[in-house]
Amino acid sequence: MKPNFSLRLRIFNLNCWGIPYLSKHRADRMKRLGDFLNMESFDLALLEEVWSEQDFQYLRQKLLPTYPAAHYFSSGVIGSGLCVFSKHPIQEFTQHVYTLNGYPYMIHHGDWFCGKAVGLLVLHLSGLVLNAYVTHLHAEYNRQKDIYLTHRVAQAWELAQFIHHTSKKADVVLLCGDLNLHPKDLGCRLLKEWTGLHDAYLETRDFKGSEEGCTMLPENCYVNQRELELFPFGIRIDYVLYKAVSGFYVSCKTLRTTTGHDPHSGTPLSDHEALMATLCVRHSPPQHTPSPTHGPAERSQLVSILKEAWIELDLGVAQARWWATFAGYVIGLGLLLLALLCALAAGGGVREVAILLWTPSVGLLLGAGAVYVFHTQEAKGLSGARAELQHVLGRAREAQDLGTESPPALLLGQQEGDGTEEQ
Amino acid sequence: MKPNFSLRLRIFNLNCWGIPYLSKHRADRMKRLGDFLNMESFDLALLEEVWSEQDFQYLRQKLLPTYPAAHYFSSGVIGSGLCVFSKHPIQEFTQHVYTLNGYPYMIHHGDWFCGKAVGLLVLHLSGLVLNAYVTHLHAEYNRQKDIYLTHRVAQAWELAQFIHHTSKKADVVLLCGDLNLHPKDLGCRLLKEWTGLHDAYLETRDFKGSEEGCTMLPENCYVNQRELELFPFGIRIDYVLYKAVSGFYVSCKTLRTTTGHDPHSGTPLSDHEALMATLCVRHSPPQHTPSPTHGPAERSQLVSILKEAWIELDLGVAQARWWATFAGYVIGLGLLLLALLCALAAGGGVREVAILLWTPSVGLLLGAGAVYVFHTQEAKGLSGARAELQHVLGRAREAQDLGTESPPALLLGQQEGDGTEEQ
Repeated sequence: MKPNFSLRLRIFNLNCWGIPYLSKHRADRMKRLGDFLNMESFDLALLEEVWSEQDFQYLRQKLLPTYPAAHYFSSGVIGSGLCVFSKHPIQEFTQHVYTLNGYPYMIHHGDWFCGKAVGLLVLHLSGLVLNAYVTHLHAEYNRQKDIYLTHRVAQAWELAQFIHHTSKKADVVLLCGDLNLHPKDLGCRLLKEWTGLHDAYLETRDFKGSEEGCTMLPENCYVNQRELELFPFGIRIDYVLYKAVSGFYVSCKTLRTTTGHDPHSGTPLSDHEALMATLCVRHSPPQHTPSPTHGPAERSQLVSILKEAWIELDLGVAQARWWATFAGYVIGLGLLLLALLCALAAGGGVREVAILLWTPSVGLLLGAGAVYVFHTQEAKGLSGARAELQHVLGRAREAQDLGTESPPALLLGQQEGDGTEEQ
Repeated sequence: MKPNFSLRLRIFNLNCWGIPYLSKHRADRMKRLGDFLNMESFDLALLEEVWSEQDFQYLRQKLLPTYPAAHYFSSGVIGSGLCVFSKHPIQEFTQHVYTLNGYPYMIHHGDWFCGKAVGLLVLHLSGLVLNAYVTHLHAEYNRQKDIYLTHRVAQAWELAQFIHHTSKKADVVLLCGDLNLHPKDLGCRLLKEWTGLHDAYLETRDFKGSEEGCTMLPENCYVNQRELELFPFGIRIDYVLYKAVSGFYVSCKTLRTTTGHDPHSGTPLSDHEALMATLCVRHSPPQHTPSPTHGPAERSQLVSILKEAWIELDLGVAQARWWATFAGYVIGLGLLLLALLCALAAGGGVREVAILLWTPSVGLLLGAGAVYVFHTQEAKGLSGARAELQHVLGRAREAQDLGTESPPALLLGQQEGDGTEEQ
């Protein structure tokens, strides 16, 4: 690779709102999305909420001349909704399905059925290894009383760990997707702090688009306005995040978002806004030293975020165990009731009533059994994530106490001088 | 690191058969296992089937002075059963739960409830990065009619991919566990071929233990003899596998197994035999060139195994889809029946019969719904694995056609000269 090596990467990200039968003007929006992607010829287009594999196949055919490589990440009952179109050959891909992803009995929310996941693509571009990740975390349906908060924090941690462990030999890491997390939400801070990823919106000097970089806007005619009641200017929940792992540095030259319309001012492409980033990858100068931000303040910030996440997961474990115990009692009660009903039915007398009550009793028993199994599994999953967090927290505290080495670098196992941000 | 650097690693692996209430002499065996591990002072003890977290806590307390670091991988309803005790500090750990792991309605087999997984530990030993993996794949209950074959192949692929993507910066990779795969089974060949891992039993020149290295022996009093009907000398399904990723080479100096007894000739520690390996890690000599086994024969072997696995997964996808479609028809039928029963109950006449039939109809509907959801999920999961395999197969074929580069090295992304086996 030449010393003056420079690589420009044009990235597109969009949550496509592609729910069959439910999302308005889906076919038309997919067509316009295809036209736009073909016209713009990005290096990489990462899409979420392409729930129908037919839509993916349609786009694949349409985009084939411009984006010869494509992949749909298949998982769950409905599908992960994640897919990718690339101008460059994809060397490798794999996926990791999140252990926790809502509750199967919350059918109207549907997240459990999607098998939400993170997809990884490895690309070799001019001798540089790019690990690109695309993801979609559990939706937030009620910010005041968010029953999925713990699961989203656990997903953010799993995502961060997956990136951390799979990107150790990558030169550049890119994460795009709908995180369903506001920039200051615990999950988002945890993800950024633990992976060291930079937020394109915060880093770029050339931003054009929606106010505050929001990706769900009240101006967008497809947005459910009730969802934005508390945020009259919109919310920012879709991201382009990136970092250089070693020997390189990445900067975000430009970032554009759509603003509630199609890029050519027609009806929007989705209920979310599209993100379009131009990243520039260059060799890290030899005199480059680790960023001064790896100081005591950052160390303490990492410890504080890890602690916050640990507390959230710990609460989640306790709650899951409570539900499992409660379901256990209901199972016991159901079994007693069934035995009683069987005795009554055998003894005559209230036979018809006993037979009639048999159905709800069996239903109660099976329902409680399912709840028990599900919440026990939830408790185990959360315990696993909590144990990982606790271990990292312990090491971060040790590093803080020693005060000699930069803990993010130490903890992230980055033995070489990291490439960091430079505009 | 000094040029004459040499590291000796003593590894212990055992499937502990620790099922509460069901496994014989569990408490006594755990006690003796703890005594033995303390006495032998291995570098790393990797255990499977420690289903009770109480047993883990007991061992943790007992082993604390010799193995200060320990971790239990928590997942599923029962737990993954995987745990590890280490003489050296564990730098990092994480886990990946297999997407497919049997069927929830096969309660008597129980695998689905275990949340089987692969656990990863990162250790830094004298400046060397060791990635140690421990796993336990789905059990085989009937070799002639193995309904879990596809799931086990999918798990072997997921395991291979997890190791492949998380070990790129490791110096040495170690995988221990109960794979529930015979050495020539498709899953085992796929795993070894795709990861490049070496089998300690086949590589060592100093082996002492059971005939053919078997890890389930008819001599073991806890073994269900019916399981070994076809294999009078036993089966080999537990493994110690290893490789050097770059700049190092690893050799297996000695491998020992127990032989149906406790190491001191008492009753066995488990129904499986323990594996005890001594590995030696050294710097790869500068003149070291990639192994000549990366020739056309090996290329063609990789392609053939990938193809075989692809066919197996493809069959699995078709079967899962058939079950989902069948369940879909049953749902339709159940809905029709329910409507009919409601009409009959409202109209009088056979009211009592209608009410009585209502229960099995609702049951049928719910059961079919669960089967539909489960097998659709299975089909998606298998499709995901099949897509990954197909991509790798395509690239392996390209490499085979080009014939210029060693495909395992090319495909595994090992840009540097790999460390290979040397006795």
